[in-house]
Amino acid sequence: MTVSAMMIELAREAKAAARGLARAGTEAKNRALLDLAGRIEAERAALQTENEKDVAQARIEGMAPALIDRLMLSDKVIGQMAGGLREVAALSDPVGQVSDMKYRPSGIQVGRMRIPLGVIGFIYESRPNVTVDAAGLCLKSGNAVILKGGREAIHSNQALGRLIGQSLEAAGLPPRAVQVVPTTDRAATLELIRLDEYLDVVIPRGGEGLIRFVAENARVPVLKHYKGTCHLYVDQGGDLEMAVRIAHNAKVQRPGVCNALETLLVHQAEADAFLPLAAQTLEAAGVELRGCPETLKRLPGRKAAVEEDWPAEYLDLILAVRVVQYLDEALDHIARYGSKHTEAIVTRDYDRARRFLTEVDSSLVLVNASTRFNDGGELGLGAEIGISTSKLHAFGPMGLDELTTTKFIAFGSGQIRRRA
Amino acid sequence: MTVSAMMIELAREAKAAARGLARAGTEAKNRALLDLAGRIEAERAALQTENEKDVAQARIEGMAPALIDRLMLSDKVIGQMAGGLREVAALSDPVGQVSDMKYRPSGIQVGRMRIPLGVIGFIYESRPNVTVDAAGLCLKSGNAVILKGGREAIHSNQALGRLIGQSLEAAGLPPRAVQVVPTTDRAATLELIRLDEYLDVVIPRGGEGLIRFVAENARVPVLKHYKGTCHLYVDQGGDLEMAVRIAHNAKVQRPGVCNALETLLVHQAEADAFLPLAAQTLEAAGVELRGCPETLKRLPGRKAAVEEDWPAEYLDLILAVRVVQYLDEALDHIARYGSKHTEAIVTRDYDRARRFLTEVDSSLVLVNASTRFNDGGELGLGAEIGISTSKLHAFGPMGLDELTTTKFIAFGSGQIRRRA
Repeated sequence: MTVSAMMIELAREAKAAARGLARAGTEAKNRALLDLAGRIEAERAALQTENEKDVAQARIEGMAPALIDRLMLSDKVIGQMAGGLREVAALSDPVGQVSDMKYRPSGIQVGRMRIPLGVIGFIYESRPNVTVDAAGLCLKSGNAVILKGGREAIHSNQALGRLIGQSLEAAGLPPRAVQVVPTTDRAATLELIRLDEYLDVVIPRGGEGLIRFVAENARVPVLKHYKGTCHLYVDQGGDLEMAVRIAHNAKVQRPGVCNALETLLVHQAEADAFLPLAAQTLEAAGVELRGCPETLKRLPGRKAAVEEDWPAEYLDLILAVRVVQYLDEALDHIARYGSKHTEAIVTRDYDRARRFLTEVDSSLVLVNASTRFNDGGELGLGAEIGISTSKLHAFGPMGLDELTTTKFIAFGSGQIRRRA
Repeated sequence: MTVSAMMIELAREAKAAARGLARAGTEAKNRALLDLAGRIEAERAALQTENEKDVAQARIEGMAPALIDRLMLSDKVIGQMAGGLREVAALSDPVGQVSDMKYRPSGIQVGRMRIPLGVIGFIYESRPNVTVDAAGLCLKSGNAVILKGGREAIHSNQALGRLIGQSLEAAGLPPRAVQVVPTTDRAATLELIRLDEYLDVVIPRGGEGLIRFVAENARVPVLKHYKGTCHLYVDQGGDLEMAVRIAHNAKVQRPGVCNALETLLVHQAEADAFLPLAAQTLEAAGVELRGCPETLKRLPGRKAAVEEDWPAEYLDLILAVRVVQYLDEALDHIARYGSKHTEAIVTRDYDRARRFLTEVDSSLVLVNASTRFNDGGELGLGAEIGISTSKLHAFGPMGLDELTTTKFIAFGSGQIRRRA
């Protein structure tokens, strides 16, 4: 069978399964989630045997130790997968929720009912545990999903896919509601993202290269997560110790993630006092500072920032620093170089806090708190399948609600439309 | 200047204007809307002079009288445009609305703020009054918009665009927030829908050919409105007189619109009684019936429906009729041939009403009411820019809320993230 025929077959099966899953009750979906959690724990040894094949291949290919670490289904990671599924089972089911029900002048009663999107294509590069996390969220939200993981995790993903299928079947749900693409061929991805007859949305999660490839070639709508070039603006009169604490947390706690701080903007009135204080704490934590000329006046000897530093997502212990004359310059800088992900201000001023909140066009805007809070769990969504930096459908972390949509429903007693 | 350079220039200007418009207060936006309403009425003669150029050209090209009718800016249409703008001014401003504000365990307080999408590309074929309707909705929702109307209305659209620019300027808003593309070149459309660096969404409105062209070539996300193949299912035990009344309204009131009825499904137990009753009323109104074999047994002499009739959007006084054995067959028929637009059931049965509402995957599902209610005004959105039949972002009529999105906002007092 050609890759093209195989993907059409998968997509057709997914669409048929989606209808059954959309009808499924909360109890059956939760039963499948809890069954899968138990099954993953029970089959730990078998999973790790399959995972070892991927790890061995990665070692042969000379993969970096940090990446091999992310590939491994350790006891801890297996525990986290099972725990994550139990958390998703405990979340309330979005499907079927009805809101805004009201009578219209015509006499019909109109509301909105939350429904699954249908069939989701999820394309990812990273760790095999994402296979289970994504399957759990899609299942709970009533969506069929086609999972296309990375080449390097193929054995692990296949093994997890088999367990998922068994749990669906055990709960009386369509086993093809979750399918793992059984090939590492990139042509399969290209095929998948063009099947707009069967798929309702594609969610790519991975490096910028993958996201661009999907965005440029997809015929199916895409929910994409580009990079996070996150900013902290230290306002005139802001609490400087708080600003240092937030900058340190945002830059140092997990420098490799999308909500980590990449650029620090400082009001000129605070530059003399703040920059040495910040440099001391950040440099002690191993952060390399790259400053604008005004920054370097206060922090001589540091590296000069060049134009490429301002839009950079370092994902590393590097921080670009710029002194600005006033709030508007900070807002212009963010509008020009930011990635609409997460920006924060440290301020004591009511008007400037309000302007920053209103005018910054990012998926999360914070006053006096760390950019690291841009996360489904921290914002109260329960769990997330990614963070959208495009504004259509979802902007920010995508949880169960973001994997659904609403349709209108209307109750009548024979009404016809009078007004043409 | 090449078409490509011109479109990039328009898009760049739109993006700059969008930032200013997003900040604009409700009062300034309403001032512009009301100013435009007055200006359109005051400039009626000048508008009609420009419109006459389009109409004269259309006559030379032999356009059908019904289409020339839609092209004309009659006194009535001018009154409707002005009235529509005053209605939009009276709607509440969605921008800046904050919802779901709550404290998280970390101590930050998180909510969602409604914000404009940014820059909208609106591509349409039809009547020049759509230029003003779309401009009004985009302006009120804080979005910059680039309007690409049909070739046949170019003089009318340019004249309306000039008035819109004057009203924006009079209200102190960025005059480039609404721009009418000053060419009829189709290359301009192709260029526009690929400018994902500047545009946030493209909304095509028109025939299936236009929508497909945009969906297949766009790099910018598309909110599309394909066809409406709407169904009415007459359930066993349903009120047959009500069913006839609804079928008549849905088919006959305005056969050329997307929420008009195209297929009638009848439970076999009601076929003997219902079909002659329905045929009498519908045929008296000039409707041609095309039936399945079971239908033709009850209505001999009518045309037989062929496979192509089931997915057809006739937009005309033609109705496909099929007898089904039970509800599931009706649901299967709708899933297979429907267009996710609007479906209705006539029933007295609680369980079947509930199943139909839940299981039909359409933007509006009705019990005992006409499909003609799928309209922004009738459903309570105030005004609409189109009806989305794709599920992402918006499903069903798109009003002011659907032209916006939400970002997360968070208030803290120095919180940093503890959990890594």
